[in-house]
Amino acid sequence: MRFTSEQRLDDGVLEREFTLDGIPGILWTPASASPSAPVPLILLGHPGGLERMYPRLLDRARQSVADGFAAATVELPGSGDRPRSAVTEQARADMRRAMAAGEPVGPEIVDRLVLPLVEQAVPEWRAALDALLALPGIGGPVGYSGGVIAIGTRLALVEPRIAAAVLFAGSFVPAATLEEARRVTVPLHVLLQWDDEGNDRQASLDLFDAFGSAEKTLNANLGGHTGVPRFAGEAAAQFFGRHLR
Amino acid sequence: MRFTSEQRLDDGVLEREFTLDGIPGILWTPASASPSAPVPLILLGHPGGLERMYPRLLDRARQSVADGFAAATVELPGSGDRPRSAVTEQARADMRRAMAAGEPVGPEIVDRLVLPLVEQAVPEWRAALDALLALPGIGGPVGYSGGVIAIGTRLALVEPRIAAAVLFAGSFVPAATLEEARRVTVPLHVLLQWDDEGNDRQASLDLFDAFGSAEKTLNANLGGHTGVPRFAGEAAAQFFGRHLR
Repeated sequence: MRFTSEQRLDDGVLEREFTLDGIPGILWTPASASPSAPVPLILLGHPGGLERMYPRLLDRARQSVADGFAAATVELPGSGDRPRSAVTEQARADMRRAMAAGEPVGPEIVDRLVLPLVEQAVPEWRAALDALLALPGIGGPVGYSGGVIAIGTRLALVEPRIAAAVLFAGSFVPAATLEEARRVTVPLHVLLQWDDEGNDRQASLDLFDAFGSAEKTLNANLGGHTGVPRFAGEAAAQFFGRHLR
Repeated sequence: MRFTSEQRLDDGVLEREFTLDGIPGILWTPASASPSAPVPLILLGHPGGLERMYPRLLDRARQSVADGFAAATVELPGSGDRPRSAVTEQARADMRRAMAAGEPVGPEIVDRLVLPLVEQAVPEWRAALDALLALPGIGGPVGYSGGVIAIGTRLALVEPRIAAAVLFAGSFVPAATLEEARRVTVPLHVLLQWDDEGNDRQASLDLFDAFGSAEKTLNANLGGHTGVPRFAGEAAAQFFGRHLR
């Protein structure tokens, strides 16, 4: 892990960009973080495209840091400056064609779009976790927050350092993810935007139903994909407060 | 309104039983409530049977009072010591027979069970509101919290003094309630117990979808009817905190 920039934001948050095996990422830490008082870490998931997502990621990072956590994210495979995958690009084109034609995006397209992304991204996030937890001032436990929900589900299943997850029900859900969800056991807080234009509501409800966790909350709010109300963000923060401290 | 008992609970809450036109009720107020500093009021809905429901109502009342609100409830028609209705008793028997036979409780039974109750209860709760708001130390705005969800929906629709409602999705939903829900506009926070044995989950989701309110949140948690987790109660309290203060 190599830091490529460092700046202190006006509210005292330390923002550092890094690369890890050629993958760009961003780390935000509170001024208070020190080797003698390490803070828990929240991984901020997103749909890909750090530059485009930066304003919303920064908002979420500021909330996490204000709550006493570090926050970090890495670019997804095939997004930003990372090399495109022919399989994913083809699936994305097929998805757009289906949507433009007013047809449902079939399970075969969803699988081609999401599953290779999960296969590649999850080991990368785990490698990022190794590097981040080795830094002075950052300790466990770790939370995962955000989409892609299939990535969050896989991480919650295979990565034992993740103690709790806030999942954004805002992406396509492969059947395989539904099966993995049954074996997830960490506490979950699932955010669903009720009128999300890019989201199949019933698929999200089915996924919530499938999770094996003994503690799971569905927090659904009116509005479109990017319209998560402030109070829903606060409820998610309280969830992490209960589970990461 | 005539007070029939009064006691100061160990945490300073003043609990008073009353009758209003022969209907029993309970009022809980904070020690701080005074004519010069009136507190908002939360009406505590329930499925009927004040005596049986008392421990859970008291828990909810304590939470409301700790948050700086008064809380009050009245007995439902046909419950506790109040006279039974032949129509409702027949509908209840038909419902039990359907459930015992493993059959769905059809819409015709649901209508007979719930609609007359709504017709009779809602004017009673509004009369209670008149009397309660006339007491020194109790002001607006008013929140409604609890089931029967068809009563809460009707009250939210017809009673302009209700500024916000926490509805428990734990009862049968007549088609007429779904239609009324579309015209409800107050902010809503709907609690749904995901594994509620006495509740049709899809009917609850359809009802949530139908509400016309610009702000509505569905907070669904794992567990049965009486298993609302403490953190879900706190989220509901925060909702009232945002809207009644």
